Amino acid sequence: MLNQALVGLGKKRSTIRELFEYGNARAKAVGRENVFDFSIGNPNVPAPEAVRETLLRLIQNTDPAVLHGYTSAQGAEAVREQTAQSLNRRFGTTYRADSLYMTVGAAAAISICFRALACAPEDEFVVFAPYFPEYAVFIEQGAGAKCVIVPPRSQDFQIDFEALGRMLNPHTKAVVINSPSNPAGTAYSAETLERLSALLREKSDAFGHTIYLISDEPYREIVYDGLELPCPARFYPSTLMCYSYSKSLSLPGERIGYVAVPDVPETADLYAAVCGAGRILGYVNAPSLFQYVTAECAGQTADLSVYAENRNLLYEGLTGMGYRCVKPQGAFYLFPQTLEPDDRAFCERAKKYDLLLVPGSDFGAPGHMRISYCVQTDKIRRALPLFQKLADEYLC
Amino acid sequence: MLNQALVGLGKKRSTIRELFEYGNARAKAVGRENVFDFSIGNPNVPAPEAVRETLLRLIQNTDPAVLHGYTSAQGAEAVREQTAQSLNRRFGTTYRADSLYMTVGAAAAISICFRALACAPEDEFVVFAPYFPEYAVFIEQGAGAKCVIVPPRSQDFQIDFEALGRMLNPHTKAVVINSPSNPAGTAYSAETLERLSALLREKSDAFGHTIYLISDEPYREIVYDGLELPCPARFYPSTLMCYSYSKSLSLPGERIGYVAVPDVPETADLYAAVCGAGRILGYVNAPSLFQYVTAECAGQTADLSVYAENRNLLYEGLTGMGYRCVKPQGAFYLFPQTLEPDDRAFCERAKKYDLLLVPGSDFGAPGHMRISYCVQTDKIRRALPLFQKLADEYLC
Repeated sequence: MLNQALVGLGKKRSTIRELFEYGNARAKAVGRENVFDFSIGNPNVPAPEAVRETLLRLIQNTDPAVLHGYTSAQGAEAVREQTAQSLNRRFGTTYRADSLYMTVGAAAAISICFRALACAPEDEFVVFAPYFPEYAVFIEQGAGAKCVIVPPRSQDFQIDFEALGRMLNPHTKAVVINSPSNPAGTAYSAETLERLSALLREKSDAFGHTIYLISDEPYREIVYDGLELPCPARFYPSTLMCYSYSKSLSLPGERIGYVAVPDVPETADLYAAVCGAGRILGYVNAPSLFQYVTAECAGQTADLSVYAENRNLLYEGLTGMGYRCVKPQGAFYLFPQTLEPDDRAFCERAKKYDLLLVPGSDFGAPGHMRISYCVQTDKIRRALPLFQKLADEYLC
Repeated sequence: MLNQALVGLGKKRSTIRELFEYGNARAKAVGRENVFDFSIGNPNVPAPEAVRETLLRLIQNTDPAVLHGYTSAQGAEAVREQTAQSLNRRFGTTYRADSLYMTVGAAAAISICFRALACAPEDEFVVFAPYFPEYAVFIEQGAGAKCVIVPPRSQDFQIDFEALGRMLNPHTKAVVINSPSNPAGTAYSAETLERLSALLREKSDAFGHTIYLISDEPYREIVYDGLELPCPARFYPSTLMCYSYSKSLSLPGERIGYVAVPDVPETADLYAAVCGAGRILGYVNAPSLFQYVTAECAGQTADLSVYAENRNLLYEGLTGMGYRCVKPQGAFYLFPQTLEPDDRAFCERAKKYDLLLVPGSDFGAPGHMRISYCVQTDKIRRALPLFQKLADEYLC
């Protein structure tokens, strides 16, 4: 009598959740400071002071019936206007208030895009491995379409254009990119976006319909070495930009983000489909207080410098021990190769040292592990000798 | 290339939204004070002071990484524990933390229930007219099932048990109740719930599977004349209780509510299906700050007394003029008969007096109109002579 697929999804704890529970149990046994939980991507830096100040000011000075009242389904108009202007100043885009649709975080934003575009079970959405595993859940169970996975290009986790070209077909509704990426931390250059756009244009022409680009950008502000991250929507007009303030403002629990709908000939229908998808999914409106807060804080970030320090320490440390790893250009994940082909066995063995790592198989890239380094730097310093011991088991 | 059903849903402004825009245009022409917008159910009383105090205290004294961090998907454990205890104290129920699943408002809660129970396109959910129109959207477009409508019993808007009995069949997954109701304000007595339970038990036995009761209770705290509202879950164990703090705490924009899953033999699967549905719909977790705020404020309410005053004034006023109306027992809506059978024509004519009313057809009950009286009492006082003029057109 129940939807058994959903019973399964609800019961099946993700590996990450399993590790989290395991970590809690170990913390009781050996002390929290001796458990090295690198499994969860929960920002550990506090929201910037501007968030607290804006919250306090709004709560003290605004009529609560307005502050906590319904906004229009697509978000308060002033919020969308401020957000559009902030994007335009930064990226040279031409968004208007009516291009923006405020969402309950990025998961809602991409779920809404999948749902808005999916018309039939044979419709396909393409993702690049290694990929955020919930993409497949949102595409298949959420939107009732097919998730097509481009295999990982392990040397750099950049786009394998040949493989992508083969996988695009008349059923392709959209290609999903995530730059910088979870779990590999790789970012796409202007040249890559140029080439991707050319391919999508060519295939759209060949198939006689637009292949959309869904750009999932929650890590946009977390980049290293002075990287200037190009804006995908500037390269390929048919881009649905999905954003969340979870990482940039360290507000993951508040669920606030947006979809930016491009100015293309079918804009009115595309925006309406986004609104319709939000409506049938039961979203009503994005949380009102945090709509106002993020609009005022748009463009600001939490102090993200600790992530750069953590990346350097961990990347230099691990590669110095013989681990092979693509150097992340952004986000807060390292995605090294495991020291044996069976990544699950490797991560299981790592538990011996209370190192909690997520097997790459969960992200469609076996033979790797994900290390979330949104932790205190000291924890990384103390974990390095344990990574060395783990390596010694294989390399000696 | 787009999902045209969703394009349609996104483009088609609801009548309520149309009236809202019309009202804004009229406000510019004749002044906001001369437009009598009774179309929107947006609480006009502020959130209680306890909400503001709790917000300020939490923001000033809590680590922002915790306050704004991810909670578990089903909600923070302490929040669920407090919420369960508050329910148990009040209703004598036996909910545990693990019975509760915190949601992004009641729309999310019921959407999740529909999705958790729907397995096939022939599955049916039964609603009683007059009904909240988004039910049909969530059931049909959201969950891909059938919305079956029991016709209105216009003399009292109570359950037509004969009609209901005929409409239950082996495809019925659940019956939806909304007491007190939007749009009629009617509430179900203990006797009604007893009789409903008996019928659902009988049919569940006959069909060999449980017919669930989905109880949508956002207006639970808004009742009149000292009414003691019975708790449906106490009468029928297989009840999924859906709640929102939107109306009781005047927080509709913040999107915070819950599903309470009953303690039945299949509880583990039922709870898992709810979790799975929340997951595929992209909800991640209910907004964290307001999880903590509502847990601390559970059991409190905004000052709801204005709604009683408004109801009395409007009900006495209109019935005195010759309008026929079932007296609301709760919520903040009046649902009188229109003075001509064509409710759309009637509501159109009302615009002449700048009275903005929603046709009953939108709620599955033609020949009626919905008047939302969550407005300032003075507005009702000044509107009554206009209702009189409108009546004079028909009754003289």
